[in-house]
Amino acid sequence: MSDFQPWCRNLADRARRGASLLARASSAAKNAWLNALADVLLTQQEMLLAANARDVQAAPHYELSSAQVDRLRLTPDRLAQAAEGLRQVAALPDPVGEVVEGSIRPNGLEVRKVRVPLGVLLFLFESRPNVTLDAAALCVKSGNAVILRGGKEALHSNAALFALIQQTLQTVGLPVEAVQFVDRPEREIVGQLLQMNDRIDLVIPRGGESLIRRVAAEATMPVLKHYKGLCHVYVHQSADLEMARRVVLNAKCQRPGVCNAAECLLVDAALAETFLPEMATVLLSHGVELRGCPVTCRLVPQARAATAEDYHTEYLGLILSVRVVADLDQALEHIGLHGSGHTEAIVTRDLAAARRFTQEVDSAAVFVNASTRFHDGYELGLGAEIGISTDRLHARGPCGLRELTTYKYIVYGEGQIRGE
Amino acid sequence: MSDFQPWCRNLADRARRGASLLARASSAAKNAWLNALADVLLTQQEMLLAANARDVQAAPHYELSSAQVDRLRLTPDRLAQAAEGLRQVAALPDPVGEVVEGSIRPNGLEVRKVRVPLGVLLFLFESRPNVTLDAAALCVKSGNAVILRGGKEALHSNAALFALIQQTLQTVGLPVEAVQFVDRPEREIVGQLLQMNDRIDLVIPRGGESLIRRVAAEATMPVLKHYKGLCHVYVHQSADLEMARRVVLNAKCQRPGVCNAAECLLVDAALAETFLPEMATVLLSHGVELRGCPVTCRLVPQARAATAEDYHTEYLGLILSVRVVADLDQALEHIGLHGSGHTEAIVTRDLAAARRFTQEVDSAAVFVNASTRFHDGYELGLGAEIGISTDRLHARGPCGLRELTTYKYIVYGEGQIRGE
Repeated sequence: MSDFQPWCRNLADRARRGASLLARASSAAKNAWLNALADVLLTQQEMLLAANARDVQAAPHYELSSAQVDRLRLTPDRLAQAAEGLRQVAALPDPVGEVVEGSIRPNGLEVRKVRVPLGVLLFLFESRPNVTLDAAALCVKSGNAVILRGGKEALHSNAALFALIQQTLQTVGLPVEAVQFVDRPEREIVGQLLQMNDRIDLVIPRGGESLIRRVAAEATMPVLKHYKGLCHVYVHQSADLEMARRVVLNAKCQRPGVCNAAECLLVDAALAETFLPEMATVLLSHGVELRGCPVTCRLVPQARAATAEDYHTEYLGLILSVRVVADLDQALEHIGLHGSGHTEAIVTRDLAAARRFTQEVDSAAVFVNASTRFHDGYELGLGAEIGISTDRLHARGPCGLRELTTYKYIVYGEGQIRGE
Repeated sequence: MSDFQPWCRNLADRARRGASLLARASSAAKNAWLNALADVLLTQQEMLLAANARDVQAAPHYELSSAQVDRLRLTPDRLAQAAEGLRQVAALPDPVGEVVEGSIRPNGLEVRKVRVPLGVLLFLFESRPNVTLDAAALCVKSGNAVILRGGKEALHSNAALFALIQQTLQTVGLPVEAVQFVDRPEREIVGQLLQMNDRIDLVIPRGGESLIRRVAAEATMPVLKHYKGLCHVYVHQSADLEMARRVVLNAKCQRPGVCNAAECLLVDAALAETFLPEMATVLLSHGVELRGCPVTCRLVPQARAATAEDYHTEYLGLILSVRVVADLDQALEHIGLHGSGHTEAIVTRDLAAARRFTQEVDSAAVFVNASTRFHDGYELGLGAEIGISTDRLHARGPCGLRELTTYKYIVYGEGQIRGE
């Protein structure tokens, strides 16, 4: 038996008790907590930034890339944004108790399908401290207890945030047990927790592909996940080229370190000569390294030749693979072969092409004439999200409050019995 | 490498091709198929009953219990019911393409969340041939391909049904590859198929608990399942006793071999003396064996003492465990400890008791003053069901057409890009 087993069991048992108390908490109490937490994020800003600065200082020690340091960093703007996010979650309807549907059956039975919390969630993440807040906010608002386990690179930031979470839960009278924080660095703890499918209902890993694959392989409970976001922008021959440039630039450069940033540009052969050189100039001026197919390399001397591996790679940085395709068929084939089922976009003026692309691309979100960067809970109107799922079961795409619930059937009768 | 691996891979690849063709089939074609299949069930009734008779004859060879033989048996009535079920599925709205929700975002993006098929389903079941029809009907209508693997006890029945399924798919011009049938008995085939999470999106095992546990342990893809239906009827002290007798009798005896039949009766101490002896007389006259707590055994001499194991047992036959409880608290505690999260019912006239029972019992379906036997896709208004889930993710309770789909986000813009 592992030394950590009793410790983990204890942690999970506390979370279970928190879950059963929280499942019946009022919306008013949960919203009061969200607003109180938003308040202290601002009043305690200096303390938080100081804690975060310690993590950022230590980042070279953990060999973080510049994209990773970007994700780690808290700023007054990002804290204000996080506080605003918490208030937005407070303003969202409480999913718990929602009657999803209901009817009276011919025999008079009154059937209601009612949303209830999932139970206890285990949330594993790497170095983005604002997801600590998102996770706690979404889990508590949806009536679930959560066990948070962040990366060691963000330990100071997360510990500071957790202290504020506990303090505000207590202030508003919600069970402090509903949010648990793993403050020990040992990796084995995660392995132990992943065995506890009698205590933990769902695990949500967020971070690099290797973390997520390890979790998916080890977990004995369901996993809400995406392995990677290898997102494509396809510029169809009928595209408005000015719009195409804007969308490609935004999809690649607006925040290159996140999962819905574009990693591969597909361009119809018919407009490669007119479109690609100018597009390349814009991308290069934004510091993007281009890795292209032979046609691309001929048209864009600065591009280096893409390897087969490039088309399978989520760069999470300022690199873009580029391929000139014959037509929509070849674009669909490329995406079917290399895509991660996360986000794809087409730029086109052709209705039939748009319809076919949205029907045949089998991804969680498919965009027509818009940046892949909009694949996000806030942007699609779900409020804050706890992650994006590329799985097909339970939830696909952004996972907000409702995706953290299940339902049960409640049926009232007057003594009805079933006949043959 | 197993000898069966290429064979299984081939089967799954055919199913995948079937799935991608079927995903775009029209509702009209799918409904025409359902109605054609309903027709041939009746016109080919003699052939089907003859095939089924061979299975029923062989049942002693497989040591089937009388409840299992009941589930295996086809009758003209059951065939007519199955045909009617197919026509009901045809009459249900096609879930594929349904816009689950949609909105225009403040920036003008048009967001739609659209239902799409899951892909390829693997359906494993034991000796109830009518589920072959339900499974094929629900999978095809929801745009999914399905690999059917029934028990060897029903091989003749299932082969006869499968022949009709293939014949009618061909008649209406749907891909025959969309329904695959494993006509070989080797158990290893199941093990191979459960490894193919790149080809099979979901496995649905229906049958005994041991089959389901084996599948859940081995499967590399999500599993839609319930282990058992250990359903309770709780007679609260305020119950209408005549109603309670009717509900308990129906829940136990109307079809004892199925998962939503009651296995345990809980009775408030306050009415044990007035209620239990009469209730016992009715149950005993219907051939039910009673296994009771000490109070029950004192009040009902024919009852034998229940063991701790009895309260954990799904009898699937004419046995009922009985326990006298102090009050609602003890009933909730008993259900929390012994229930399978499937179906629970309370008989009461007390509003507060009904509300507390429905809120605190954590089961897929909770009934007030109605038989547990109503926990069923038809009865709750979903149409035919492919099974009942006691899991919390994806689907809980009866799984009908919509529970066999996922969704994707389709977003139309006019060149929108994301700002910080």
